[in-house]
Amino acid sequence: MAHKKLINDPLKVADELVEGLVEAYNGECDFVGARSLVLKNIPDNKVALLVGGGSGHEPIYHGLVGRNLADGAACGDIFAAPPPDIVLEATQAVSKGNGVLYLYGNYAGDVMNFDIGAELAEEEDIEVRTVLIWDDVCSAPPTEKNKRRGIAGLVPVVKLVGAASQTATSLDELEALAKKAVLNTRSVGVSMSPGSIPATGKPTFEIDEDKIGLGMGIHGEPGVGDIPMTTADELTPQMLDLIFADFDKDEDIDALKEGDEILFFVNSLGSTTMMELLIALRKAREILNTKGIKTYDVIVGPLVTCQEMSGISFSITKLDDELKKYWDLPCQSLCYSKMEGHYGG
Amino acid sequence: MAHKKLINDPLKVADELVEGLVEAYNGECDFVGARSLVLKNIPDNKVALLVGGGSGHEPIYHGLVGRNLADGAACGDIFAAPPPDIVLEATQAVSKGNGVLYLYGNYAGDVMNFDIGAELAEEEDIEVRTVLIWDDVCSAPPTEKNKRRGIAGLVPVVKLVGAASQTATSLDELEALAKKAVLNTRSVGVSMSPGSIPATGKPTFEIDEDKIGLGMGIHGEPGVGDIPMTTADELTPQMLDLIFADFDKDEDIDALKEGDEILFFVNSLGSTTMMELLIALRKAREILNTKGIKTYDVIVGPLVTCQEMSGISFSITKLDDELKKYWDLPCQSLCYSKMEGHYGG
Repeated sequence: MAHKKLINDPLKVADELVEGLVEAYNGECDFVGARSLVLKNIPDNKVALLVGGGSGHEPIYHGLVGRNLADGAACGDIFAAPPPDIVLEATQAVSKGNGVLYLYGNYAGDVMNFDIGAELAEEEDIEVRTVLIWDDVCSAPPTEKNKRRGIAGLVPVVKLVGAASQTATSLDELEALAKKAVLNTRSVGVSMSPGSIPATGKPTFEIDEDKIGLGMGIHGEPGVGDIPMTTADELTPQMLDLIFADFDKDEDIDALKEGDEILFFVNSLGSTTMMELLIALRKAREILNTKGIKTYDVIVGPLVTCQEMSGISFSITKLDDELKKYWDLPCQSLCYSKMEGHYGG
Repeated sequence: MAHKKLINDPLKVADELVEGLVEAYNGECDFVGARSLVLKNIPDNKVALLVGGGSGHEPIYHGLVGRNLADGAACGDIFAAPPPDIVLEATQAVSKGNGVLYLYGNYAGDVMNFDIGAELAEEEDIEVRTVLIWDDVCSAPPTEKNKRRGIAGLVPVVKLVGAASQTATSLDELEALAKKAVLNTRSVGVSMSPGSIPATGKPTFEIDEDKIGLGMGIHGEPGVGDIPMTTADELTPQMLDLIFADFDKDEDIDALKEGDEILFFVNSLGSTTMMELLIALRKAREILNTKGIKTYDVIVGPLVTCQEMSGISFSITKLDDELKKYWDLPCQSLCYSKMEGHYGG
């Protein structure tokens, strides 16, 4: 039985969902050009933050536009990068004379299109820098981080960089902060069943009924490999160990150790319930506590999805005083909202 | 193919998810008694707000405990009311000497168990009042609102009452505000496919492949009836018309008219994607705008769910100056968080 979706023309879902997103923002954002979403009233001289990527993964990427978050998003069609004209239109709309930082997940199509958009923007004297998010530790070894995919870690990264962008005085400063947030953020995902492509109803990938894809990407990209379906308590340490090992092996960052402070994010890829996320969180916190790693704050929810795909991911962001200050700033968007401060603080 | 769930013992999911919820609150809540969640540091003399209900609908009900929201939740087993001893333990834990308001969805099992809990609390000199949430207009006519179910409208209601509880000086005052928030909130839900029961993997109800259950409750309770599967743009006006008609017919409240200000909430029942919610929101706002009804703020998300059930609901809360003031207060919880103010304000 195919998943029943409440849509109109299957080929127009990307346009219509961005129109709906503008309505969700209730006057605080504009639909710009062919398919961009941009905050109104971006202050003059602000170092602008632009995100973006394919649609169909809501509430990311465009749902990260918001208060103390991204200034705009260049929105692609379903599972497709935004073309250069959309990137350019979004760049023009967010640019306030002090440069634009592009911050998005590391996928070849996105990189190609955003890079061309950046060239077009530079021709109009808009300075652009790009920081790629590559948090998926199962997609390449630490020595080849440029080959890694961006998955759920983009939520804490955009949250931190969006906060920093409110007071950054230069593109250099914001770029440096973004690089640190990316370096400090590592994720592992697993998948149990695919989502379906809105235009065709076909599944995004195949997986055996009794298997779980360890390290699988959000579009079903291969990870570590399939393992037998198991319990939350058996799977959680395997996922965390992959993240711990990555911090260990990567020469660009210190290993996670007792006393370190982190953000911990449990994400659902779509139809995996919050019940399951909480059960996994319970075990993950037990392991983190045993290691003496301090959880500064927790994010839980279906924030980085691929339609009704089932599966979860864990993301860890190592914090320092600067990142904690930016984390504590309140924010509001479709994807993620919080009050000032942090839980347990 | 049964939905694959990442759990441990299927009979322990309710306990384990509440333990995980405590971890999500990172020290701001305690697990109390057999299965309650209670904020730490509730101020002395605060009029306390207690919510609760069956588990399995996360992020409600227990996910509405939080900053400027509910003080505690009595959590039942999966799709089952919390028994009186749990209600009593939660009541004792939130009570700070100025009474406790119970605010929960109108289901017979919950009413019976919370009422016994209230009697036990009264024996310990804790004053309790109860306000039932009955926003589902398809579950009984306006003359029999006491027979209506509580569905997604509980999110804006608990948000408003939680805000009011921060400054309420008496249980009378908070009870009156809660009754107004309930009276002003009306919802309609539809379902396209069931969730599954964690303990058995069995579906929560059955529905034809080419049908959509109009007015169906979150456990699959009957509504207006099954209609042919249709598009978002065809279904949205049908759902809104049922809400408009209810405000029209109900002698206890004025009809919705041009110039009225509302909260508009588009909820997913589980696996329906945010893409679909946004497409429905786009059409709903078009209709609301045509009628001159002003959307003060918008809520979008999978907040009132039944496992991986697919379907959506719309909820409208009519606002006045008092309710707008409480809406604008920031809040934070697993279920719903916001900064101060409102979008478009």
